[in-house]
Amino acid sequence: MILQPLLDAVLVDLGGTVVIEAPAGTPVADLTVELRPEVLDDLRAIAGDVRLGAVTNTSVMVEGEVRGLLAATGVDEVLEVLVTSVDAGVAKPDPAPLLLALQRLGLSDPSRVLYVGDQPTDAEAAEAAGMAYVDVDGGTIATAVCGWVERTAGGRFEASRGAVRASDVAASTEAAAHQSRLTKPPGSLGRLEDASLQLAAIARVSPPPVPEPAVIAVFAADHGVLAAGVSPWPQEVTAQMVANFTTGGAAVNVLARHAGAEVTVIDVGVATPLLAEGGVARRRVAHGTADLSSGPAMTRIEALLALDVGAEMAGAAIAGGAGCLITGDMGIGNTTPSAALIAAITGLPPAEVTGRGAGADDEVLARKIAVIETALERVQSTAGALTLLQEVGGLEIAALAGYIVGGAAGGVPVIIDGVIAAAAALVAVSLCPDSCQYLFAGHRSVEPGASAALEHLGLDPLLDLDLRLGEGTGATLSLAVLQASAKLLREMATFDSAGVTEK
Amino acid sequence: MILQPLLDAVLVDLGGTVVIEAPAGTPVADLTVELRPEVLDDLRAIAGDVRLGAVTNTSVMVEGEVRGLLAATGVDEVLEVLVTSVDAGVAKPDPAPLLLALQRLGLSDPSRVLYVGDQPTDAEAAEAAGMAYVDVDGGTIATAVCGWVERTAGGRFEASRGAVRASDVAASTEAAAHQSRLTKPPGSLGRLEDASLQLAAIARVSPPPVPEPAVIAVFAADHGVLAAGVSPWPQEVTAQMVANFTTGGAAVNVLARHAGAEVTVIDVGVATPLLAEGGVARRRVAHGTADLSSGPAMTRIEALLALDVGAEMAGAAIAGGAGCLITGDMGIGNTTPSAALIAAITGLPPAEVTGRGAGADDEVLARKIAVIETALERVQSTAGALTLLQEVGGLEIAALAGYIVGGAAGGVPVIIDGVIAAAAALVAVSLCPDSCQYLFAGHRSVEPGASAALEHLGLDPLLDLDLRLGEGTGATLSLAVLQASAKLLREMATFDSAGVTEK
Repeated sequence: MILQPLLDAVLVDLGGTVVIEAPAGTPVADLTVELRPEVLDDLRAIAGDVRLGAVTNTSVMVEGEVRGLLAATGVDEVLEVLVTSVDAGVAKPDPAPLLLALQRLGLSDPSRVLYVGDQPTDAEAAEAAGMAYVDVDGGTIATAVCGWVERTAGGRFEASRGAVRASDVAASTEAAAHQSRLTKPPGSLGRLEDASLQLAAIARVSPPPVPEPAVIAVFAADHGVLAAGVSPWPQEVTAQMVANFTTGGAAVNVLARHAGAEVTVIDVGVATPLLAEGGVARRRVAHGTADLSSGPAMTRIEALLALDVGAEMAGAAIAGGAGCLITGDMGIGNTTPSAALIAAITGLPPAEVTGRGAGADDEVLARKIAVIETALERVQSTAGALTLLQEVGGLEIAALAGYIVGGAAGGVPVIIDGVIAAAAALVAVSLCPDSCQYLFAGHRSVEPGASAALEHLGLDPLLDLDLRLGEGTGATLSLAVLQASAKLLREMATFDSAGVTEK
Repeated sequence: MILQPLLDAVLVDLGGTVVIEAPAGTPVADLTVELRPEVLDDLRAIAGDVRLGAVTNTSVMVEGEVRGLLAATGVDEVLEVLVTSVDAGVAKPDPAPLLLALQRLGLSDPSRVLYVGDQPTDAEAAEAAGMAYVDVDGGTIATAVCGWVERTAGGRFEASRGAVRASDVAASTEAAAHQSRLTKPPGSLGRLEDASLQLAAIARVSPPPVPEPAVIAVFAADHGVLAAGVSPWPQEVTAQMVANFTTGGAAVNVLARHAGAEVTVIDVGVATPLLAEGGVARRRVAHGTADLSSGPAMTRIEALLALDVGAEMAGAAIAGGAGCLITGDMGIGNTTPSAALIAAITGLPPAEVTGRGAGADDEVLARKIAVIETALERVQSTAGALTLLQEVGGLEIAALAGYIVGGAAGGVPVIIDGVIAAAAALVAVSLCPDSCQYLFAGHRSVEPGASAALEHLGLDPLLDLDLRLGEGTGATLSLAVLQASAKLLREMATFDSAGVTEK
């Protein structure tokens, strides 16, 4: 079951949901426990992906007594917490038992918890607690939960997309007028002036705030197409580099410290076990994509969930005070899906937009191009960006597209990094054209697809240093330039204030 | 008299130097005061440029008594301080009277004080105090002081030039080996890797220290060629912008604060009075250059003094702890001498290397080119860089050349800014080829001469943002990139330390 992208935990009701409901008023001594169909397998599947607990209405039993009744069924073992209305001191529909379970799990965000029940009082309690709810409705827990995931997937991204506004031309015009009064020859700050105007349009105010603090979201995922021989690096490096990010030893960590930015790492689809859980947001949509050379890389639901993850991370960063978002990525093999998306969306031949990535030799490069050509043959030329993403994309690329749209929805600038982010930006802008107005290209990657994508998007990169590392490195390095453009507009003296004669 | 570039103050002996010496043992009541030839004019000329005081040996008189004797001559008025051996409690050759005079002037650097005397004890006292000394040797004070300036000019620059060593290839090789062990595909950090290797060669150690703190020296000067109509901006703007620098309102101030760098402002040849003295180092070689369109811009002595000022400022910054020097400049009209030097040294036609500077229209641009063509006709094609500097250069350009060589002598990286600094770098590297190994080009200016000069120097700029403001802005903005290159080499994990598999 794919739950992590949407949920930290599932809470289940017991009577009518996990066990067949005993008639009301049955004495405790007479209670027998009979599980509903497939319950134990379903609960084990859930517990394999997220936290699991139970909340049950009973006027007479505390946790230990209920666990004692359940012990013989195996259910007791999979429930990390169990709260009864006696434990909480109130019965449903009061949300207190649900919130107590949340607290005992050490979680704080009720919106990332799903409560599974069978009664209107269960639904009312979940709503009051700010949790999602699904009713088993006489079926299995798995059917109910999977149905909820299918209905919910894409919702977060869609909400972000709907919230994106065109940036504010009036603020940009006001910024241009102020630029012309600063103590310098007109236009002499070159592209810094353009950047400051765009920042004003994004912030809808002149002068714009300095884009800080910045959050770099590094989305990590693996790629089934690696099996086609598109990279000299082994898949395990993705998880190893995730560990490197969490201990601060990767290039993006060094550059983030230098720039005063924060790195967040998100497992949106790593194929192998993480080496340590600490410091990584668990949002694994799948254990890597399928091999795009022989079929769709993702299901539609997977693509939507990855978009949701990106939008969620953008929203969380902005809610936490971020004034600027930076894209980061990690995924052995990910220049192949990126080049495929860039070829498909720009219409350029794969051979023109495919590069050597992290070190492909001539043979591997030829294989990458052939794989992309084959994959694109099965995709209709009229396919929309979501279909392309699903067919030839990657989970971190989808998440980055969601992150970009989420940043635009939150009204903050988004600095994109190299070819992976450029591919994601093409998808984001295809799905949400106004999001392009919130984008800055941090640098010009060596990868040919990056330049092709930036040209298609009308973006001129801030830096050009022959970088091809990814992780968000080039974008992070460019943050200081973008911040400088805002500070110049905010802090420079005017001809009048400084008493400088104009020509 | 041109003293500021070398001196903060002149101290004069009285008996035998300012006044005709009375026979030893003459009772005070019988002393008469007779000035030596031209003394009053000479002292007034000195006091018009630097601080002036007197130190005299007498076994019986305190300051007030000596001043009383001098009052009728007019000399008393021009002497800001006067210290007798009675005041100091010791007679020369003890340095105490000279150091007391220094202290009373509020100065701290004896090396920037010249003592003028007529006796071996005077020379001994100056040496003991760490001051320069010149003997009037029976002539006038002006002749003695001007002779000293002529003999001294160029010495500071020459000492720096002699101290420049080729950078350390072994350290660069060691840095390259370490780069290959970092957790990234080889070469994927592009030009940041090259920069880190050069920093190692400069610092003679791997990994190199982060180039910090950085000092931006903004050398300000005016240009006689402005009279030929080479800029739409009036000359007074140079002094106005100097004031803007000291109050922190100019672009370079904003970028310096952003980069954590310090701005120092040096008047090496502003033509008009400064609007405020505070915050500006007084090193005025001349009130602007002569018009290069009709004759040499500077005398040889002026060019040497300006080179000295630059070398001095570099040495002072490094002595103060600077780990990186950044070039800055301000001077209305200064793209014309810069283009002239670039044309002369690269051999390119003036029309190819002359740009619009701070806003020349087609007519002004044509005039700039014609002025440069005419000026270069009178300069022999075999002329050395010092002659070219004198003929068609500028005072801030000369100072920047000295600053570059001074930075190389001190073993720190020097980031050059735009076209003015590029012209200065051509002069510096012509005079001291190894200094080129210490240079980084901060950015690619819009001015065509900048690119021509950088190509001649073999420098590839770190940034390319269409800037054409000068002041040191582009170089200051690039500091974060250069610092990042060192931090990556210093802080990134290696494949071994992070447990990452190599391809």
